[in-house]
Formats: sequence, structure tokens, C-alpha cells
Amino acid sequence: MTAHPRPARPVVLGQNQYGKAENRVVKVTRDGATHHIKDLNVSVSLSGDMDDVHYSGSNAHVLPTDTTKNTVYAFAKEHGIESAEQFGIHLARHFVTSQGPIHRARIRIEEYAWERIASSDAGSRPLGADEVRHSFVRTGQETRLTQVTYDGASWEVVSGLKDLVVMNTTDSEFWGYAKDRYTTLKEAHDRILATEVSGRWRFGWTGDAERMPHWDESYEQTKKHMLRAFAETYSLSLQQTLYQMGARIIDHRDEIDEVRFSLPNKHHFLVDLEPFGLENDNEVYFAADRPYGLIEATVLRDGSEARIPVDHSNL
Amino acid sequence: MTAHPRPARPVVLGQNQYGKAENRVVKVTRDGATHHIKDLNVSVSLSGDMDDVHYSGSNAHVLPTDTTKNTVYAFAKEHGIESAEQFGIHLARHFVTSQGPIHRARIRIEEYAWERIASSDAGSRPLGADEVRHSFVRTGQETRLTQVTYDGASWEVVSGLKDLVVMNTTDSEFWGYAKDRYTTLKEAHDRILATEVSGRWRFGWTGDAERMPHWDESYEQTKKHMLRAFAETYSLSLQQTLYQMGARIIDHRDEIDEVRFSLPNKHHFLVDLEPFGLENDNEVYFAADRPYGLIEATVLRDGSEARIPVDHSNL
Amino acid sequence: MTAHPRPARPVVLGQNQYGKAENRVVKVTRDGATHHIKDLNVSVSLSGDMDDVHYSGSNAHVLPTDTTKNTVYAFAKEHGIESAEQFGIHLARHFVTSQGPIHRARIRIEEYAWERIASSDAGSRPLGADEVRHSFVRTGQETRLTQVTYDGASWEVVSGLKDLVVMNTTDSEFWGYAKDRYTTLKEAHDRILATEVSGRWRFGWTGDAERMPHWDESYEQTKKHMLRAFAETYSLSLQQTLYQMGARIIDHRDEIDEVRFSLPNKHHFLVDLEPFGLENDNEVYFAADRPYGLIEATVLRDGSEARIPVDHSNL
Amino acid sequence: MTAHPRPARPVVLGQNQYGKAENRVVKVTRDGATHHIKDLNVSVSLSGDMDDVHYSGSNAHVLPTDTTKNTVYAFAKEHGIESAEQFGIHLARHFVTSQGPIHRARIRIEEYAWERIASSDAGSRPLGADEVRHSFVRTGQETRLTQVTYDGASWEVVSGLKDLVVMNTTDSEFWGYAKDRYTTLKEAHDRILATEVSGRWRFGWTGDAERMPHWDESYEQTKKHMLRAFAETYSLSLQQTLYQMGARIIDHRDEIDEVRFSLPNKHHFLVDLEPFGLENDNEVYFAADRPYGLIEATVLRDGSEARIPVDHSNL
Repeated sequence: MTAHPRPARPVVLGQNQYGKAENRVVKVTRDGATHHIKDLNVSVSLSGDMDDVHYSGSNAHVLPTDTTKNTVYAFAKEHGIESAEQFGIHLARHFVTSQGPIHRARIRIEEYAWERIASSDAGSRPLGADEVRHSFVRTGQETRLTQVTYDGASWEVVSGLKDLVVMNTTDSEFWGYAKDRYTTLKEAHDRILATEVSGRWRFGWTGDAERMPHWDESYEQTKKHMLRAFAETYSLSLQQTLYQMGARIIDHRDEIDEVRFSLPNKHHFLVDLEPFGLENDNEVYFAADRPYGLIEATVLRDGSEARIPVDHSNL
Repeated sequence: MTAHPRPARPVVLGQNQYGKAENRVVKVTRDGATHHIKDLNVSVSLSGDMDDVHYSGSNAHVLPTDTTKNTVYAFAKEHGIESAEQFGIHLARHFVTSQGPIHRARIRIEEYAWERIASSDAGSRPLGADEVRHSFVRTGQETRLTQVTYDGASWEVVSGLKDLVVMNTTDSEFWGYAKDRYTTLKEAHDRILATEVSGRWRFGWTGDAERMPHWDESYEQTKKHMLRAFAETYSLSLQQTLYQMGARIIDHRDEIDEVRFSLPNKHHFLVDLEPFGLENDNEVYFAADRPYGLIEATVLRDGSEARIPVDHSNL
Repeated sequence: MTAHPRPARPVVLGQNQYGKAENRVVKVTRDGATHHIKDLNVSVSLSGDMDDVHYSGSNAHVLPTDTTKNTVYAFAKEHGIESAEQFGIHLARHFVTSQGPIHRARIRIEEYAWERIASSDAGSRPLGADEVRHSFVRTGQETRLTQVTYDGASWEVVSGLKDLVVMNTTDSEFWGYAKDRYTTLKEAHDRILATEVSGRWRFGWTGDAERMPHWDESYEQTKKHMLRAFAETYSLSLQQTLYQMGARIIDHRDEIDEVRFSLPNKHHFLVDLEPFGLENDNEVYFAADRPYGLIEATVLRDGSEARIPVDHSNL
Repeated sequence: MTAHPRPARPVVLGQNQYGKAENRVVKVTRDGATHHIKDLNVSVSLSGDMDDVHYSGSNAHVLPTDTTKNTVYAFAKEHGIESAEQFGIHLARHFVTSQGPIHRARIRIEEYAWERIASSDAGSRPLGADEVRHSFVRTGQETRLTQVTYDGASWEVVSGLKDLVVMNTTDSEFWGYAKDRYTTLKEAHDRILATEVSGRWRFGWTGDAERMPHWDESYEQTKKHMLRAFAETYSLSLQQTLYQMGARIIDHRDEIDEVRFSLPNKHHFLVDLEPFGLENDNEVYFAADRPYGLIEATVLRDGSEARIPVDHSNL
């Protein structure tokens, strides 16, 4: 809170930030006839010496949000887009170091993945000389996320993903829980466990003097470990699975100190087919929408400080 | 229109249909330790001798929508889900043949695709004996669609897809168009062409006496031809690309007589970087939301009748 | 279908249309210090002599979708926006009469309603001399719709609304329905009836020589009759309520010949509180999402032709 | 962070919470023939002594999310729903005081407003004896929100709203801002200012010994002051308007100590009509979607602690 010192003002300004949200930028890189694309949604939030614009409407310290938008597009040309994280670092550094009143920049990025359209029966073999190399289809699976924050001295990078829907059709139980007068749930010894993963992980990297992680490799490996932990955990509760997903990441990825998941329990209810004279041996399920269980937790490297907010929003 | 014969009624009932929409059914099939899943969203619409329920509220001819829901789940057990089309055929036949007042059934199905989570570094090789075979991740790409209609005598099957986003980063032009006093657009000789494909294709199969198409193979091949036509067409307009996509399907898939596409032109505007002293040689684009061009057309096998409605809705 | 006459072509082009969708236009009219606003989302679809652009990519007959967008904004200035219907008529007439190859124009419009923010305790009394007259809050209730089609000779205007959620907490029953082996539903003699109304109504007006309806008054009255029919019908089925809603409009509004409704049955299930030793005397309900009953029907003035498509999409 | 004391564990559990989200409950209260409704979406989050369920899958401390759902419905009967806040207080107190391992409960509620359908030309006058009193239409404007948190000792209530779209068509300027090499924006001396308000306000009330606010009156008055501040502020920046909205609430509502707003600048761009020989004197605007400015800030009663998180999510 940047409390305003004028006497007798009963109302003061607290934390504030501003910027242009959801700048959709697509970058095409041409390597001869072979094209590569990066497809990002970039949101800029700036903070600093901004009392005047709130109290009096003076914009002298305000770099327009339109300018922050222009900067996103110009930087896509000037610096290219090596990775979402690297692009965010370029932007955050620029705003903090070039504008005196701006003391902190937070850059949030969503990345959408694309894959090539095969133009022959080649499948996964290398493209031939006469094949199309500029056609893409959006993979449509998870959305990759990153948030880069810089205050002129140290960095915080929190990456993650959302919209990744996973399901185990067995190896999940739920029993032995607390009961009160409102408990009617029957214990389950073989159920479907499904969730739509929303995860965030914070890197230990904080300073320009340290070796920077390899962002893309880190993402691929982190996603892989997370999926395998989901698949391989024999689950007695979604909390247990969540913890395993987080612990597997901390165990395998030295560059990551903290993970937070928000996992809706996408209930699949076994349909009662008895009224129709049919047995339902864990075969036919009703996939429900609302309500849903919601399991949220942080998993940390021992000794690390928890910094990912309890309620992380998406943009 | 089923005009009601009572004299002096100035208002009459026209086309009507009813049923339970969006029944979410997940079917698990266990082949030893290896599980398979089908994930459908099934909507039932029934029509027939339904004047009374509209005029007087008598439900004597009305099989409850709740019963149509139960039937979806019971049929998942009784018949299994071989393909969305085959499942729709089972349901449509049942309603029309078992309930006298019901003369027509239309079953609409959305199908969501899942792939296995690899539980080792195996990648695409076959699973080993000790690997997990019941874990899945939703592919998240297109939604597969089908609509099966049966009136007791003949069948109409219209399949398709939606939510498939594709992009060519070159080999697209747009020029030589009509101009009037409101025209300001500059001609383009190298632009991005991107769209989110919504397509429907009608099968020639109409009767139980005919050989039924292989629905899953048809879907995979149709999608493949459509994507390749998109990728390989040097495009002078999105209309030309649309026609090529449809014609390729008609040319290669004998079982399909008619295709209709609704293709939003997902504009990617080249950003003007000149004010910043930068050149933009088809590298940096702004991906716009609204407004968007919308190109819609039917492509037919010569001699076939056009039956897919102009405005096909999604459910 | 505009079948193409060239010999030996096994594939032909069928119905097609194109244009710019979702042009968001806000028009401010200043009457001294008192401002008025119109907030529309306008979609243009043009058809005509368009074979060449599909077969060869020649755009000679294609007025760019960008031009149709410009026309929307220019017409907002040139003609103003008296009503959504009148604005659509201006646009449709323009495209068909000014471009030879264009034979048909269809303009679809969504309108969002706004009301003034009261700037004192005045409430509903007239604004005083010193009060703010340029501040608005979006009402957020239904979205008003219209579709204007013109082929150079006659007009078709279909207006309507969507997103209007209504509920009766009593005076609704459902019993006496057909039963089969999949029927488990219990009869209900007092239930909640709720739906989200999607309605379309077609005007009898087809020609410039006829007196044009008063569009805004027609909309207000039609909505009022529809709501009252919903409220005042003692309902034995949602079909009966739907018919009453349509019939009330046909009875009271001479300018309307046909109405079509798509009414999802937004189920409110009575919660079973018995396990907790509580009685639930039609007090506590669970509002469900999916699946939902879906009731659709056309209601017509006797002698009129049914022209609203069975599956009307929203844009 | 509840660090786990076992030696040599390199990974620990941090903040965690669980519960059932989005329980949709509709409560009907019958006052003779006159019905009243409350329509809520209730999400429960519980925290406490939950290490075991994460580390080992033991559910002994876990009251099932299904039970928390049942409790919501049972409490709607047992306590009624006086207001969203009061209902949340009942629920939070119950979970913390009845289950030893649960140390904190957070209840989030969305409320949807309904108004009566007038069943005659009465308009706003009282209903007559023969008029329908059980028919409602959803107002569709803002969604009312509250979040009640209880740790067994003190309360925190943060209420608010979202989805409230407002617009001033004049009395807004933007100029005198900082400029750098990426600045191209032209200064504006008369522009549209529009936003979709997302606001949260924290009550000073923390303990059962204090007099509880009148929640419904507080909401109505807070919304009124907020709207008037928006309408009456001659704005030199959206930040200034935001501060005025917050300060007006703090000034007028003693029960509120802190307000936080997230205000997207819903850009309305003046359309350039010059190419068509038309002048655009602040009449015709293009309502843009993305990107948008995003202005966020906290406004506080002097001496109060800022406790509303920077990024407040909606559920």
C-alpha cells in the first residue's frame, strides 16, 4: 500500500497496476520454404509512482496502455520470440528500465501450440522437397502459461498450463472419510478419476547473474512428469494425486521450487442401470458439470518460500 | 406443417420436436488391463403425432425426455458404442419403431477424442507389460459431430467436425475484387489465411439394404483430405479454398455426396511497425477477433440433392 | 443450388454466401446534453453470381467483406439507427441494388439494451437541469435479434430474442405421459417450470408498397405478450406453454404470421432432504445444467407458410 | 505453509483447501400466493489439518465434498436464505465448529437477481388479487458476489459484483501522458469511457460481538454510490474514475473499509469516415474486444489494512 501522506485524507490508494491485456501476436519465422510460428496472448501490468493519476487524473507518469501494446508487437520483431518466458523477460526489463515512474512490470502470456499439417502420407518422416511447409493446425490441447515479474532488482518467473483434461478409468478409490449427519456418499473402491489441470510452477531463477533455465525444455519435461505422476499414482484421494504430481516435478526439475495446482474433480457418476435389468460393471458413466469437487494445494521444495497466490487467476 | 383441422382456429401448430439434449455419456471398455473409452454428448429430438400436447397439454403421446436420457445410457451398455454414427442409428431406430406416435427421430452427437498418456519413455512404441493402460489425456483438437435422422423408412447421416483451427502462413492472395465508394481495403499478394473449420458432410447411405459405410475410417480419411486440400491450395480467396476442400472430399470419398462448410476468416493483420523504424516483412501479425469474414458454401456430387441446411447449428 | 453447366464436372457448387460477421457499432445521438445510444452487432451475408470465385478464385464479383464492414459504419452516420430492423433494411437494399452480381442480402443484428444511470435520488422522475444525461448501464437482460433478407423483389423480416430466462415456481405439472421399459420418471403435480427463451417471429410485411410495421413498438408488445402467456398459463407440459406463448403473439400482433421457439427445460430438481430428517415442501431446488429437455415448435397464423428454419442459429 | 516435520523429506505441502464448487441452489418462499426466490451458486473451500490426505491418501480428516454439497441444500431449508452473506456465515460457522480438523472455511457465493413478470398493465403498482405472483424473469444485469471466511475466531466478509457494463458517452479525456519511441496514440479530449465493473469490498465487521451490517441494504447503496461516481466523474483517466468510485464508497459506507476494482477499458474507437466523405463528430464508434486496457487498484479507509488479493478470481 502506497499510503498518501496528505493530512486529513480519510481515503487512500492501495496496490494498483495498469496495462494492456490480451495482445494477440503471431510471429512467423521463415527458414527458406519452412515456416515456424509462435502464437501468444500477452498482457502487460505496470506499477510504480502512480498516485497522481488516481488522485487528480494527471497522466504525466502514465505510459499509455496503447504504447505497451505497440511495444509487444515491436519487440516481436526486434527480439523475436524464442520462448514465452524469454519474450516476457525482454518486455518486463524494458518497461522498468526505460520509464522512471514504473517500478514493477508483470507480463502474463498464454501460448497456443500448433503442429504441421502433413501434406502427404509421410506421417512423421521429414518433409520432402516438394511438400508444403507453411500449413499448421492448432493442437488444441493445453494452453501454456507464463508470468514474468521484474522490479528492477530481481525476477520471478511462474509458468504453467491450463485446459489439460486427463482421466484414469481405474486405480482410484475414495473411502474412510469423515462422516456427519449430512453425509450420504457411498464409499468407492474403483472409480473414474478425471480433472482439468490448472497448474503453476515457480522457478528458482531470480537474477541476471544466475544461469537461466532452458524454458522450452523445462516446460516439456515438467508436463511429462506431471502427466506420468497422474497416470501412475494409485489414488486414494485427488489430494494424494495432486501431491504426487507436484512432488514429482520438484523431485525431477531442479529449476522449479514451488508448484500449485487447482484440480476440479470432474465427476463421472456410474449410471444406475438396474431399473432396466442391466448390470453396470464400471462401464457406463454420466459426466457431470456442476457442482464439482475442487482440490487446490501448493507443493514446495523444502526451505523454499511459498509465493504463488492461493487464487491464481488466468490472465 | 401439421395443420390442425378444427374449424375457426386462427392459429396452428407447425414443425415441432422435443427430446433430451446434451446427455454426456462416457463408456469404458476393458480388454484385460487395457482400457478403451468413448466420450459422447448425445442429443435426442423426436417428432410425430404431437398436436395434443401442444393444444391441450395431454402427454399421452409424449415419451418423457427423461426416458430418452435413460435410453442413451442403457443403450451404451446394451449395444456398446462402436462409433458415434452407429450409436445414433441404434437410438433413432429404437424411438421410431417402439413408440407409435413418434414418426421421426434425430440424434445429434458430439464426440471428444482422447489419447493414452505414455507411462514411460516409450513414446509411440507399443506399451510394455508393466505400463499403465488406463490413463488418458483429451486431445482437445476438433470436436467430431454426427446427426442421424430416421423416419421409419430411410436414413440420413450427416457427420462433420467443428473447432478445428488451421493456418497457412503464405500462398494466399486477395486482389482483383469489386470496389465501390466504401472500399478502402488494400490488395494483398501474400497474406496469412486462417480459419476455424466447421464442416458437415452427408452420406449417400439411406437404407438398411445398402452396405453401411465404415464410419470411423470415413471420418479419418475425410479429415485428412480436407486438411490437405487446405494446405495445398494456393489460394486467391477463401471461397476457392473452401471449394477445394469440399471437392477433394467428394472426389475421394464415394460414400459422401454433399459437404457444407462455414469458414470464418480469422484475420491476421500485418502490424505497421514503420512508426518505430522497423520493417515488417510478413513477420508480425495481430490476430483479430471481431469482425471476421464468414464464408459459407455447399459442395455437391453432381446430381445429388442439397439437403444440409444453410444455417446448421451445432447441437 | 446453382449447378454449374460445364460437362464432365463431377462436383458442383451449391448454396453459398459470404460477408463480414459481427460488426460492433455503437451510435451516439446528442440531443443537447441528453445523449441516446444504439449498440448493435451486425452481420452481413451476400449471395449471387459467385461461381467464379469458388471455381477459379477470381474476385471480380466479390465486394470485399471489409467493404461491407465499412458500409455498416458509414450507414450508421448516413441513415442513423432508428431501429435494428430499419437499419437492416437500409443495408440489405444497398447491397442488392448497387452490386449487379449480388442477388440477395441477409443482415443479422443483435441489439444490446442500455438504461440511464440515475444521477440523483430522482428515480424514475424526469432528469433535472443539472443531472448527468450521458451515463448508461447495460440492462443485461435479453438480446434483441433481427434478420432482414432482401432479394431485390421482396422482403423477409424475422425478429426475436435470446437469453431471456424465466421461471414459474408453481402452476406446472407433468404426468400422464407414455411409458416404456426405460421410464423411471415420477409424475409431478407441482414443479418449477423454467426456460431460457430463444424466439423468432416473422413479419407479414414483404413489400415496399405495404405499410411497414412500427418495429420498436412491435418488439415491446410481442415481448410483453410472450412473458404474460408464460406467466399466466397453467402448464401441463412445456409444449403447452410454448404453444400458448406463440398463439398469444399471433392473436395480438397482426403484423406477425409465424413464431418459432426453442425452449430448453431448465430443470430444477427438488432436493431429497429426507436423509437429513428434513421435509422439502417445494422449497429447495437444485438447478441443473445438462442434460436438459429441449422443446421446439413453430406456431403459425392459419394459412401462412412456415418459413423460419427448424434449426435457427444465432448469428 | 504447514511444513511437514519428517526429516529428509525434500518436498513439503503448502497452503491447501478443498470443497465442492458451484452448488446451484434455488430457494422458494411462499407467502400465501406470493412467492419469493433466492438463486445462488455456492462454493465451499475448507482448510485445516490435511497433511495426511496429501501424503498418504488417508481420508480420516476429510469431510467429503459431497457432504459439503448436501449441507448447502440442507441449510437452505434449516436456515433459509436471508442474504448471500448471512447464508455464507451459517455455512462457514458450521464447518469450522463441527469438524475438528477443519480450521478455516471460505464460502463464495454468486447471486442472480430476478424480478416479477407483470401480469397486467399494472406496471409498477401493487399486484391485484387475481394476478400471478409466482412468475419471474432474470434481470440479467450484474452478478452479486460474496466471500465469507471464518477461522473459528474472526470473520472476513468481502462482497462485490461482476458483469456490470457501464458507459459514459462524454466527459472523458486522455492526454498529457508519457511518451516513448513506441507511442503513437493521439490525445483525446472527448471520448467514450466504458468498462465492465468487477468490484470487491471488504467489511470492517470481523466478530460476532460487533453489530452485523445490513447486507442487502449495504449492497444496494454501495452499487448506487459506485454507479453515481462513475456517472458524475469528469474523467481524465480511467484510474481517476476508479479512485472516485472507491472513495465514494468509503466515504458513504461506514461498514466498508477497502474496495478493489478491476476495470477493463472497453475501447470504443471513433471510426474514420473521411474516406467516404463523411464527418464523424463523436457519433459512430467501433466497440473493440481485444486488446483492452486493464486498470486495477485498491482504495482504502485510512488506517485499514489491505487484505483483498491483487488478483481476485471469480469463484
